[in-house]
Amino acid sequence: MKSFRSLPTTRKAGFPPADTTPPLWQHTGMARKTDPRNFERVLDAAAKLFLDVGYDAASMQQLADRLGLHKSSLYHYVSSKDDLLKHLIDEAQTTAEHDLDVAEQDLESGYLTALKLAIEQTLNDRSRVSLVLRQKPGSAAGDNAITRRRSYDQRLAKLIEHAQASGTVRGDIHPMLLARLTMGMVAWIVEWYDPERTRFSAEEITQAALTLVNQGIGLPEGR
Amino acid sequence: MKSFRSLPTTRKAGFPPADTTPPLWQHTGMARKTDPRNFERVLDAAAKLFLDVGYDAASMQQLADRLGLHKSSLYHYVSSKDDLLKHLIDEAQTTAEHDLDVAEQDLESGYLTALKLAIEQTLNDRSRVSLVLRQKPGSAAGDNAITRRRSYDQRLAKLIEHAQASGTVRGDIHPMLLARLTMGMVAWIVEWYDPERTRFSAEEITQAALTLVNQGIGLPEGR
Repeated sequence: MKSFRSLPTTRKAGFPPADTTPPLWQHTGMARKTDPRNFERVLDAAAKLFLDVGYDAASMQQLADRLGLHKSSLYHYVSSKDDLLKHLIDEAQTTAEHDLDVAEQDLESGYLTALKLAIEQTLNDRSRVSLVLRQKPGSAAGDNAITRRRSYDQRLAKLIEHAQASGTVRGDIHPMLLARLTMGMVAWIVEWYDPERTRFSAEEITQAALTLVNQGIGLPEGR
Repeated sequence: MKSFRSLPTTRKAGFPPADTTPPLWQHTGMARKTDPRNFERVLDAAAKLFLDVGYDAASMQQLADRLGLHKSSLYHYVSSKDDLLKHLIDEAQTTAEHDLDVAEQDLESGYLTALKLAIEQTLNDRSRVSLVLRQKPGSAAGDNAITRRRSYDQRLAKLIEHAQASGTVRGDIHPMLLARLTMGMVAWIVEWYDPERTRFSAEEITQAALTLVNQGIGLPEGR
């Protein structure tokens, strides 16, 4: 198995994701005439607001205030709070699925690549990731997000199966259980990581998580 | 380090926790004359309801319906929904703190014992545990729960420090970071584990999580 330092990386934590998919404003029915940079600014501010106060408690007025816009101007970009939520979730899931595409290009280290990219996405954009993780079934948007999450989990478990079959990953834990436990470590990052306050750098967290998954808490060789 | 199979266990998943602290009805100002078994039944039903529909959406009427009680009878046991929440959170945190007391009795394997007991509590009572984990700052109850969570995390990090100093746990990851990552694996269990639907047994999940923390995904020796 490759060292995790040599695994692909699609972006650096702290910088916007390198986006190879068309920006949302190109394929949505809204805001075609507005500047995409402004639309991204609205989305970023909405993601941050939803993280800070919770989606239910957040209002379009609060969002307008944070952006220094009149509320009516906000509706040039988006039609509703619900629309914003759908866009943010779609962005995050599209990124995660694109990362899986990258991971699946090298099945031998695919599982570790997927894990590394998931950690980077979480550190880089925990506000969008937390929106995805908090979706519950019962609404159209929630059901859709959960269907995509389930498909992500199944693809990840498949990558684990490949690694188990090739003998690089232990075979005594069910691939789906291994997927759930390791991704739990990643998912929980959104609850405690705050780039403005944390004492750990993104690099340090990524390294520690991958070391833990690879080698466990046992002492490193040679110590 | 001891094998995790020999670590202390305070309860079996699927059975009520062995409670060594006085039952809540003894030290609360309410329901003194009511049967504690009934009060426990109310708490259990409330925990399940809050998990199923969310705390905000849950109503005392729904709880009464589930218990087959008149809503007015419910108020013999509790004064409000908020009171129920406080009690449930207090129960779960008291159990977790008691488990840490047990873990701290043997510093050498204390970290692994704490982890094992936390997994067992989560599998055994994910409804109460999820209430603790979902508390946000901003209300008196939320602030209090978070203060206790923080103190739990610090005690856990101290146990990791002990294990690192004694050479049983790798020293190249900050104890608090190790605490956060491994407890993330545990905390996330509340999101995917459902004893009525899951394909994995409580025993299998506990074993897998502890194996993963101890040894990572590397192949077991001799394979």
